[in-house]
Amino acid sequence: MNEKQKNKLPVFCSRLFEAKVERGITFAQLGEKIGRDEVWVAAVFYGQAKPNHEEITKLADALGTNLSNLSDFNDKSFFPDKGGLVEVPPTDPLIYRFYEIIQVYGYPLKAVIHEKFGDGIMSAIDFTARVDKVVKDGGERVKVTFEGKFLPYKKW
Amino acid sequence: MNEKQKNKLPVFCSRLFEAKVERGITFAQLGEKIGRDEVWVAAVFYGQAKPNHEEITKLADALGTNLSNLSDFNDKSFFPDKGGLVEVPPTDPLIYRFYEIIQVYGYPLKAVIHEKFGDGIMSAIDFTARVDKVVKDGGERVKVTFEGKFLPYKKW
Amino acid sequence: MNEKQKNKLPVFCSRLFEAKVERGITFAQLGEKIGRDEVWVAAVFYGQAKPNHEEITKLADALGTNLSNLSDFNDKSFFPDKGGLVEVPPTDPLIYRFYEIIQVYGYPLKAVIHEKFGDGIMSAIDFTARVDKVVKDGGERVKVTFEGKFLPYKKW
Amino acid sequence: MNEKQKNKLPVFCSRLFEAKVERGITFAQLGEKIGRDEVWVAAVFYGQAKPNHEEITKLADALGTNLSNLSDFNDKSFFPDKGGLVEVPPTDPLIYRFYEIIQVYGYPLKAVIHEKFGDGIMSAIDFTARVDKVVKDGGERVKVTFEGKFLPYKKW
Amino acid sequence: MNEKQKNKLPVFCSRLFEAKVERGITFAQLGEKIGRDEVWVAAVFYGQAKPNHEEITKLADALGTNLSNLSDFNDKSFFPDKGGLVEVPPTDPLIYRFYEIIQVYGYPLKAVIHEKFGDGIMSAIDFTARVDKVVKDGGERVKVTFEGKFLPYKKW
Amino acid sequence: MNEKQKNKLPVFCSRLFEAKVERGITFAQLGEKIGRDEVWVAAVFYGQAKPNHEEITKLADALGTNLSNLSDFNDKSFFPDKGGLVEVPPTDPLIYRFYEIIQVYGYPLKAVIHEKFGDGIMSAIDFTARVDKVVKDGGERVKVTFEGKFLPYKKW
Amino acid sequence: MNEKQKNKLPVFCSRLFEAKVERGITFAQLGEKIGRDEVWVAAVFYGQAKPNHEEITKLADALGTNLSNLSDFNDKSFFPDKGGLVEVPPTDPLIYRFYEIIQVYGYPLKAVIHEKFGDGIMSAIDFTARVDKVVKDGGERVKVTFEGKFLPYKKW
Amino acid sequence: MNEKQKNKLPVFCSRLFEAKVERGITFAQLGEKIGRDEVWVAAVFYGQAKPNHEEITKLADALGTNLSNLSDFNDKSFFPDKGGLVEVPPTDPLIYRFYEIIQVYGYPLKAVIHEKFGDGIMSAIDFTARVDKVVKDGGERVKVTFEGKFLPYKKW
Amino acid sequence: MNEKQKNKLPVFCSRLFEAKVERGITFAQLGEKIGRDEVWVAAVFYGQAKPNHEEITKLADALGTNLSNLSDFNDKSFFPDKGGLVEVPPTDPLIYRFYEIIQVYGYPLKAVIHEKFGDGIMSAIDFTARVDKVVKDGGERVKVTFEGKFLPYKKW
Amino acid sequence: MNEKQKNKLPVFCSRLFEAKVERGITFAQLGEKIGRDEVWVAAVFYGQAKPNHEEITKLADALGTNLSNLSDFNDKSFFPDKGGLVEVPPTDPLIYRFYEIIQVYGYPLKAVIHEKFGDGIMSAIDFTARVDKVVKDGGERVKVTFEGKFLPYKKW
Repeated sequence: MNEKQKNKLPVFCSRLFEAKVERGITFAQLGEKIGRDEVWVAAVFYGQAKPNHEEITKLADALGTNLSNLSDFNDKSFFPDKGGLVEVPPTDPLIYRFYEIIQVYGYPLKAVIHEKFGDGIMSAIDFTARVDKVVKDGGERVKVTFEGKFLPYKKW
Repeated sequence: MNEKQKNKLPVFCSRLFEAKVERGITFAQLGEKIGRDEVWVAAVFYGQAKPNHEEITKLADALGTNLSNLSDFNDKSFFPDKGGLVEVPPTDPLIYRFYEIIQVYGYPLKAVIHEKFGDGIMSAIDFTARVDKVVKDGGERVKVTFEGKFLPYKKW
Repeated sequence: MNEKQKNKLPVFCSRLFEAKVERGITFAQLGEKIGRDEVWVAAVFYGQAKPNHEEITKLADALGTNLSNLSDFNDKSFFPDKGGLVEVPPTDPLIYRFYEIIQVYGYPLKAVIHEKFGDGIMSAIDFTARVDKVVKDGGERVKVTFEGKFLPYKKW
Repeated sequence: MNEKQKNKLPVFCSRLFEAKVERGITFAQLGEKIGRDEVWVAAVFYGQAKPNHEEITKLADALGTNLSNLSDFNDKSFFPDKGGLVEVPPTDPLIYRFYEIIQVYGYPLKAVIHEKFGDGIMSAIDFTARVDKVVKDGGERVKVTFEGKFLPYKKW
Repeated sequence: MNEKQKNKLPVFCSRLFEAKVERGITFAQLGEKIGRDEVWVAAVFYGQAKPNHEEITKLADALGTNLSNLSDFNDKSFFPDKGGLVEVPPTDPLIYRFYEIIQVYGYPLKAVIHEKFGDGIMSAIDFTARVDKVVKDGGERVKVTFEGKFLPYKKW
Repeated sequence: MNEKQKNKLPVFCSRLFEAKVERGITFAQLGEKIGRDEVWVAAVFYGQAKPNHEEITKLADALGTNLSNLSDFNDKSFFPDKGGLVEVPPTDPLIYRFYEIIQVYGYPLKAVIHEKFGDGIMSAIDFTARVDKVVKDGGERVKVTFEGKFLPYKKW
Repeated sequence: MNEKQKNKLPVFCSRLFEAKVERGITFAQLGEKIGRDEVWVAAVFYGQAKPNHEEITKLADALGTNLSNLSDFNDKSFFPDKGGLVEVPPTDPLIYRFYEIIQVYGYPLKAVIHEKFGDGIMSAIDFTARVDKVVKDGGERVKVTFEGKFLPYKKW
Repeated sequence: MNEKQKNKLPVFCSRLFEAKVERGITFAQLGEKIGRDEVWVAAVFYGQAKPNHEEITKLADALGTNLSNLSDFNDKSFFPDKGGLVEVPPTDPLIYRFYEIIQVYGYPLKAVIHEKFGDGIMSAIDFTARVDKVVKDGGERVKVTFEGKFLPYKKW
Repeated sequence: MNEKQKNKLPVFCSRLFEAKVERGITFAQLGEKIGRDEVWVAAVFYGQAKPNHEEITKLADALGTNLSNLSDFNDKSFFPDKGGLVEVPPTDPLIYRFYEIIQVYGYPLKAVIHEKFGDGIMSAIDFTARVDKVVKDGGERVKVTFEGKFLPYKKW
Repeated sequence: MNEKQKNKLPVFCSRLFEAKVERGITFAQLGEKIGRDEVWVAAVFYGQAKPNHEEITKLADALGTNLSNLSDFNDKSFFPDKGGLVEVPPTDPLIYRFYEIIQVYGYPLKAVIHEKFGDGIMSAIDFTARVDKVVKDGGERVKVTFEGKFLPYKKW
């Protein structure tokens, strides 16, 4: 995490990163220890998801750090200011590819979702994201699965 | 498809849409008839994927339209000018949610993909996208699966 | 509706506007006739909400126009490409004031909503908007009421 | 409040936040203590509304902090530099939904307000905003009410 | 008025311009004939102010054109979509100078207005603008006078 | 003045503000003491106008501060880097209204100025700006007067 | 001149271009015939400078075209809407180089002009531009000379 | 030079400015001492031109400062990261006028240069810029001369 | 070529494309026939390079079309308005990759070029671009070679 | 590397630069010592490429610095946040020329690559970049070679 990103996040986020580097532990391992998916755990580190007191305690534990190190975490008043870390359009090639997928397949996805579900959207709130490794034809493939509740447009 | 979008696409794309509305056929049905996924078929309609001569003939067939109606399609010289239909950021709420997912989960996804695969990206070219309907707890959920080849950064 | 906006909307939208001007009827009156709120009716005219076949027939009726006049309306394949009519930031002063309210009161509203509801958002899909006239101290006041389902962030 | 936001606000704003976290008090409770709506109180914290000397003293009291802690507050020369905290378009999903409402319902709202009031605007200055929790059909709904004076365009 | 501007305005606006050129009449002369300031009359021509039926009839008269020529003018449903003709920042040097004045003197004006009036704004709705020619030291000076109601921020 | 603005201005500007707050003196009072209009004085504070050695000495005097406090002021090498404090478009509502006036009345003002003066512009350099309080019909009105030399376009 | 540019200019501009191509005459030759510099003549063609009735008649003459061909030229109401043809930043390499010169030498030029003239600007209105060919060391060099009145900042 | 600019330049640049203010010497005087044009010298100060070891030594001398004060200057590895100090479009009025000249006279200059030289550009690299004071009709005029090698487009 | 692009180019460009599709000939074949590289030929089609009368005649010949079909081509007055077809950043994935290469390797390339050549640039005018197919390890690789004259920064 | 760039990169990057300046060694020399191309080495310095533990050790060695000096380098958790150093469009003239090449030759390159390879892209990941000095006709030319795997679009 660079200085520019730190300026947009609470201090406890960079503390989490430092502890993780020191421990040499992955998001997957952390996820297993606290019973959450690795992507959600990473979202906590990047200040994009809100852990409650119990979850942050477990994380501190798993990282071998002290809760008091995460001094500015406050369960009751920490409601992440989400988004804002990613440039528009993204400059990092890995993140950009997701953006390109929207540029190229945005309308096709919209058309197919409407045909299957009607007028509405896939929720990005009641939502999960997973990353899996698939091996096919001797090569590795990244499989990303987004799943969100279908929300039909209300008429009134 | 509105006028603004038509200005950015070959004429045969709007012809495809007109025939589809007349036939009352879905992308899923079209996909089955020509042996391709519905998202890819929709991508052809939106001028984002390149069908070859055989595929466009099959499509014309399935739509009950004549190939001569798609007068400006030319297998050898049509290489889609991809992207460009979607505003930045997207203004349509369904498409925006995908953009928001990148804003919020972009760095977490990057971190997890690197931990699983090393330094590289998920290809958006050697790539597939699927839309499925999942029913859970009595509600419908949209499941979108992206799968792309992992491309490691070459060193030289 | 100017040419620039027409280019972004289906033809039946401008037909609706023409019929409305000719009839000299308000959105409120139309709303009463078809049993919907005036804001939703206006959203249909601006191509932002999807009426079904029955609703568009009622609208055509109330406007004294013929359904065949709305030739490109198609219940099954019309899924509005929403947003995109409003400049960013809005240049029209009435619309700009809403934008300014977000600029000025965006974070205060976020803070209060989180304190009352927890981590999540007000849905803009399962959502209604109303406009009322309030008379206070001898002056007219515009009262705009937004109501949307609270969607808590899912953890996974 | 992150570093980036602090750079745009007077120091007494971050002092207010720190005291509030320490006290564990909500904007609603603060509002009751000083006789103002919670949204307005939050606007003071985010440097978007101007309290006078009496109001800031009451706030300091309610927060158990000392007025001298809010060293750079000066009733006579503090006129908030409003706006500027929110990205355009907003990146936080909660705030973005308000923006989306303008994108989608901006022109419908404009049309209905004009039909009801004539040519003019809803003031964002002689204005109030409220947040209420509504329970309907067993679910929670966020109700946001904006009320502003109608200002007719002057002709000259 | 160029094509690009015409696309953003109702047809009757360009009709007004054509009649004005043919008549060889100034905005000042038109203003005198209909009892309005020349700036307001020009605002009508540029689709930025709303004349009522009586005013547009007087204008048509003064221009020697027929009301039926202004076919798409409709007192009841024409509520100008204001703004949007001017590039941001303005590219025309005359208009740009106003923009530059805001860039350079924006904060000084804000500071002085607050000192004189308190926390609030100068209304751009209950507002008038005048242009006068002043001769000083043998040179011509443009004097532009903006006058708007002071609107104090409401607390609630 | 916030941190972000300070980064764009010489240090002596923030020193001026601090001294002014301490003294509890207005720009109008300062203007009287040094024989300049309050708007120009405010422009000096915001680093937008260049005082000479005599003027800055008078200002220091009037503020009861020492010239040595304004350590980085240098009459010979200080040529303000003007503009750049105001966001585009402005986010502060008071400043935004001026911007809106340009958006809405920009072309009407241009048309009227050309009709009165010919092809040219109102100078923003050989220019003055005043703020006056006008009381009309029992309400306060802000009157802002811009006056600039008319510069005709040279032909060559 | 392409369609996009034509949409921003009066019709008589494209007529001028057509006549010039047909005649096979240069701006330099035209300039000599009407007694103006070639750059100013080109500015008339691109709708950036205002010729009076006499000048446009001379131009029509020199081009062997009829004034009636320039049907929408009107000396009294044509006040060019200047700027707006050039993208920001310019995409054409020749025009871009001028932009780059500002990017690289903007502050150095500002510093030197202030040292030589004091606080003020070079007018772009009371201004001339020339293009000359210079041959040095056997190579051709483009010499562009801008000359504008120095306008000192007024204090008030 | 403000903090924002300093963040984009090597430290030795601000050292040069400090020494120059202390010495009370102009760019013209410095230029004479080291045998370079004043604009080029100013470009060195703003980190836009690369002096070699000899030139920087002469500069240090002329400024009465020690080369060791310019600690981060390194002839072999300092290749200026040019551009980037000027906002787009420029906010400072003096610099903006150059930008406006491109907006208004960009295409006319392009047309005339092509007519005189053929298809190609004026180099901004093999390039010089001068500022002269011209007195005409009793007034001062700024004369800026750009001269760059003509580079014809290569065909291949 | 879509409508949006056609609006930015001379008519003869779309004529060239139509003839090429009809003939079923590649840029490589055209290049051989007229003795130019295929990339340069394609640049002519996209209105980015200037052919002279002889070259356009050869092209018309090779395409079996008549020069009179390219009615608006004029050797003496056609100086391409270059750039402007590509969105910023590019939305087409193939073109975007080049943009990404600049984002990622821009500063490394700059550093290496300076170390090898000194302070200056690679010309984009005295410049050639080639595309070759390379087969390595059984896979096809795209090899793009840019070659431009080194232009050292002039000091003056 | 300036402060603004440092804020976007890990600390070990600026340490590498400092050591390189002290040693007076080029990227080419470094590349030879560690068996990598100079462009890739420069990419490591600019935080755009990921060295492994062995490579960074070799680099430290070649630079005569201690690995412990590069304290925040961590092979397992350092996955560069690529891109983001270059302004859009680039302001540095050397980097801008590459951008201009895309603006001007982007579509021609796309057309030729598709004709040679079919529908797909040149990978920017499985990719190499080289800089060579070519001497022709007594002048130096910069030769930049990009080579990337051709990735055909997958159909599904």
